[in-house]
Amino acid sequence: MSDVDKTWALDPRLETDSLALTSLELCDVRLANDARWPWLILVPRVANAEELFDLRPGQREAAMQEATMVGEKLKAVTSCEKINIAAIGNVVRQLHIHVAARATGDENWPRPIWGHGTAQPYEAGHGQALIAHLRSIL
Amino acid sequence: MSDVDKTWALDPRLETDSLALTSLELCDVRLANDARWPWLILVPRVANAEELFDLRPGQREAAMQEATMVGEKLKAVTSCEKINIAAIGNVVRQLHIHVAARATGDENWPRPIWGHGTAQPYEAGHGQALIAHLRSIL
Repeated sequence: MSDVDKTWALDPRLETDSLALTSLELCDVRLANDARWPWLILVPRVANAEELFDLRPGQREAAMQEATMVGEKLKAVTSCEKINIAAIGNVVRQLHIHVAARATGDENWPRPIWGHGTAQPYEAGHGQALIAHLRSIL
Repeated sequence: MSDVDKTWALDPRLETDSLALTSLELCDVRLANDARWPWLILVPRVANAEELFDLRPGQREAAMQEATMVGEKLKAVTSCEKINIAAIGNVVRQLHIHVAARATGDENWPRPIWGHGTAQPYEAGHGQALIAHLRSIL
């Protein structure tokens, strides 16, 4: 996408808490490093955007097209019950969109994944195997 | 919008837990009956939609345009710190989009509003006054 901002850089906390997966036209896609849920994070490469309405309409449409496409594929891969899509950002202000797969009986179901307990980082091979699989379908 | 589904009906739990505010082209806008946060809920009038990706692309764009427009105005009205926009639906499956105003020190900040504690219904006049104010700007 020609209007991606070259001054954009990934927030350091997002970089620490997630693993690079792929790069779509507008958004970087990352896997949250938390094995409790299949949880992806899309980060539009637009500098200084904090809210969805900080994006221009075409960027917002691209971001949501990518988030819903990723959500639909994540649901197919995980056979989950419900995809949760959210732009929250109360802690990390750089605009990012969560796409998480949820199912009955998972950690904190049916309450949200955010702000619950402590992340359980993937074991070495598991995160990379999941990333390779998701990368092949996105 | 011509493609709004005439067979759509509001989910009974959404109806019980929120108050009618206004009707946009695609979505009904409701005020969550919970005075802990300024919290709106947009419900696309599309039958059988549970996920954002159940909407056709034009409907998804309309829903997100309306949600971000409502979010931007809610932020202006409340002078909040952050707008949270989310399609979760783990409990009520009818597609609905939360738009909530958050600020440092509010209930459960910076953790999410969903699944936290018990709703505090508006006192009689307060909910209607807020609805009247929001209706005048949406």
